[in-house]
Amino acid sequence: MDDMRTLFEAGLKDIYFTEHAVLAILPKLAARANSVELRVMLDDHLQETKDQIERLEEVFGLIASPPEGKECPALKGLVQETEEAIAGSRDPVVLDAAMIGCAEAIEHYEIARYATLIAWAEQLDLIEIAEILEDSLEEEESADQRLTALALRGFSATPHLPRATH
Amino acid sequence: MDDMRTLFEAGLKDIYFTEHAVLAILPKLAARANSVELRVMLDDHLQETKDQIERLEEVFGLIASPPEGKECPALKGLVQETEEAIAGSRDPVVLDAAMIGCAEAIEHYEIARYATLIAWAEQLDLIEIAEILEDSLEEEESADQRLTALALRGFSATPHLPRATH
Repeated sequence: MDDMRTLFEAGLKDIYFTEHAVLAILPKLAARANSVELRVMLDDHLQETKDQIERLEEVFGLIASPPEGKECPALKGLVQETEEAIAGSRDPVVLDAAMIGCAEAIEHYEIARYATLIAWAEQLDLIEIAEILEDSLEEEESADQRLTALALRGFSATPHLPRATH
Repeated sequence: MDDMRTLFEAGLKDIYFTEHAVLAILPKLAARANSVELRVMLDDHLQETKDQIERLEEVFGLIASPPEGKECPALKGLVQETEEAIAGSRDPVVLDAAMIGCAEAIEHYEIARYATLIAWAEQLDLIEIAEILEDSLEEEESADQRLTALALRGFSATPHLPRATH
């Protein structure tokens, strides 16, 4: 990669791959969530993820490049850790805590990548694109704050749905 | 994992593995950094990483468990992306930008994991441990802010050292 434009496009493909992986994993987390609040949060973020994918497709359009994902080893590792956490926790409180931890790690990966892309867009004078990506960054930061609040509170006092058996 | 204590210990092993991987990759990044400020930042964070490893060993001591790392697929993926970025960027400005992006992703992984561990420590009434981990979280957040500032500024106006040839 010999120029910032190529680097920016590679970053865009990374986060496009990431958002699609998030779209696939969120329903699996929501289906196993025992806390109602966690389930609602994950469902809300599923809709935001769809919006973020649309924004990325808008950005690809603005740079006249077809939307394309690039396999991202970090995100694959995060997904693997998440699936191990789901498979490895039987107690509902522990399972929720483990899933929140994994979801937070994924959110932070997205926060880092969006923050970098915005900085690069600004250096490339792609101001409209920077603003579009800023909307997604704010959603990711807000999702992370909701997860942190759930993690700090724990689940001992919150209502739980009957545990899914699948 | 059937209780929060086991989950907490697994998280501790994850971040202990992570900090050792960071200790190994930071000098590689610093050796390739072209911006003096980036090199100084990475050197400073190397020392902080050593302090963070000592803190984790203190925490292992407090829960009477031997310090032990657990291989972490997410961090391995982040390291792989970082090495690909180093290998794939020839222009010094692009290389610095790519390395900052990868370093930010690693910092955010650590921020997520420390935040989760602190929440779990508080739920387990391990208040002294939560406070120790809080010191590391603050350092990671500060490191991320320095990286973000470097990314936003770009490097066109900053002094550069002669580019390393290895």
